[in-house]
Amino acid sequence: MREEDLIAGIDALVRGTSTRVLVGIGDDAAVWQPSRSHRSIITTDVLIENVHFSRGWMSLRDIGFRAMAANASDAAAMAARPVLATVALGIAEGTTPTDVLELYAGMQACAQPFGLAIAGGDLSRAPVMTIAITLVGEVRPSNLKLRSGARPGDILAVTGALGASRAGLAILRGACELEPALAAEALEAHARPRARVREGRFLGASRHVHAMMDCSDGLSTDLARLCAKSGVGAAIDEVPVAASAAAAARALGEDARAFALAGGEDFELLAAIDPRAFSHLAARFHAHIGRLLHRVGVVQADAALVVVNQGETQPLRSSGWDHFA
Amino acid sequence: MREEDLIAGIDALVRGTSTRVLVGIGDDAAVWQPSRSHRSIITTDVLIENVHFSRGWMSLRDIGFRAMAANASDAAAMAARPVLATVALGIAEGTTPTDVLELYAGMQACAQPFGLAIAGGDLSRAPVMTIAITLVGEVRPSNLKLRSGARPGDILAVTGALGASRAGLAILRGACELEPALAAEALEAHARPRARVREGRFLGASRHVHAMMDCSDGLSTDLARLCAKSGVGAAIDEVPVAASAAAAARALGEDARAFALAGGEDFELLAAIDPRAFSHLAARFHAHIGRLLHRVGVVQADAALVVVNQGETQPLRSSGWDHFA
Repeated sequence: MREEDLIAGIDALVRGTSTRVLVGIGDDAAVWQPSRSHRSIITTDVLIENVHFSRGWMSLRDIGFRAMAANASDAAAMAARPVLATVALGIAEGTTPTDVLELYAGMQACAQPFGLAIAGGDLSRAPVMTIAITLVGEVRPSNLKLRSGARPGDILAVTGALGASRAGLAILRGACELEPALAAEALEAHARPRARVREGRFLGASRHVHAMMDCSDGLSTDLARLCAKSGVGAAIDEVPVAASAAAAARALGEDARAFALAGGEDFELLAAIDPRAFSHLAARFHAHIGRLLHRVGVVQADAALVVVNQGETQPLRSSGWDHFA
Repeated sequence: MREEDLIAGIDALVRGTSTRVLVGIGDDAAVWQPSRSHRSIITTDVLIENVHFSRGWMSLRDIGFRAMAANASDAAAMAARPVLATVALGIAEGTTPTDVLELYAGMQACAQPFGLAIAGGDLSRAPVMTIAITLVGEVRPSNLKLRSGARPGDILAVTGALGASRAGLAILRGACELEPALAAEALEAHARPRARVREGRFLGASRHVHAMMDCSDGLSTDLARLCAKSGVGAAIDEVPVAASAAAAARALGEDARAFALAGGEDFELLAAIDPRAFSHLAARFHAHIGRLLHRVGVVQADAALVVVNQGETQPLRSSGWDHFA
């Protein structure tokens, strides 16, 4: 059984218990209705030592920052404002209280600029460090963006260049070395990823944005998920590659676009946008946010996912991670 | 450093980020304000295999049921209605998709009667099974009950007899044997604990209930927490001991009251109630809920915690669990 099938089985088991839950399993976050005029979202992530992170590679402060950023990014992908988070923490033998406070300092450093409060939690012993964060956010009902709204003809766009986090991971693994400035870009992207909350709320306010999600597992994998939810396909024709990712790909003898497409944890947002509104929206995005909204391709009615490179069309390979494969 | 000091350190680090969070770390759940007229609560629990449960002792269905009940009980302790939950699951090598669905079936069996929806989650590989549930509930602002409201003179009461879950654990560990009917009571209490959601909402609706929490770590430990939060002490003069707990204590050569006072995971609610209103409220409780509201003692201005037994006063020993001790 693939992870996807298991999740479908879980969904079938739990679906329909409450009419207040408007979106259940399967999007970046679940959505419910605390009152008639409000929508709240909730998302959770579990990070396990030696599966998702290694303490030798990164400080506990960075591990905490990353963990909180991953959840804030899911809120951003729903166009929501992160409001509060809880942290369930499993602590391995030998972890000191100072270590735990370092981890929390990193989570708080990520959360504070968003006005996101760490409101509760639970501590336990565990065989390895285990970090389960749950985050609640709020969004105006009309601004909520799901994965399922993409339409044929929509422009696909991302909120930043891709692949820097993967380049950082390659450096930490000792797989390549980059010149100092590029190495710094890559390591910062990996250790202190920015959840695109402002970007998500900006895009959420536009009715021309039909679907949105965050790129946590790489554009190739995440685009496949968005397209599956929307019942469409897509053609990727441009890939904004981060400078450090291009350099890392070169050092590793890989194609830069393929490297960036498969790079996870960039946490840029992927949006499907009405083609008539794209130019105007991208200009406003740049003026308000100070960053580029990069076109990466177009949504197609045909369910296939392809990459177009110098006129040549190839299938887009998913680099997705399956815990049960 | 004790766990309590570590939690205080975490609290100092994260406190004050958002004015929307009305109650942060330190009660059964955190409270926030999704809109002016609404209050939501959030609580999280992490359960680690071989720390909190052993797969040899209990079915995955029961493990799931218990895990959800522990969270629903925290909502009950705030007088809140459980609304939705997310589940972050770490899965050990050798766990099959069927195992995971069994676990979810148990969680759903607990959740469904409350109208509580399992709305999302995350799956990961882990060295041992790891279950982190986060639950959101809702409560009318005027009904919310905290741990901090107990006043000298208040009657302390619990919503049911204590110690049955501990008796069940003793049977599972092979420490004692009980006659079939008592063994069944004990094992049911341990494997399928009932979150006292109806009881909590009933008590929440009374302004004579000044403080409330759930007994997850045993009355002796939890009473100490309620008193510490309220800045009071207490004298325990009656302990409602479950029949199976009395029998298990006898079989183990222990005092029945001490056994019940130290028995964790009964998930009965502990409330501090205005003494002038207690009799009337207890009668109404019995009429509405069909169960007894048991008096266990009285709140005192003096910070000491004592047990009064046949006129003799002894200090109440906490049996509390400290992950850092």
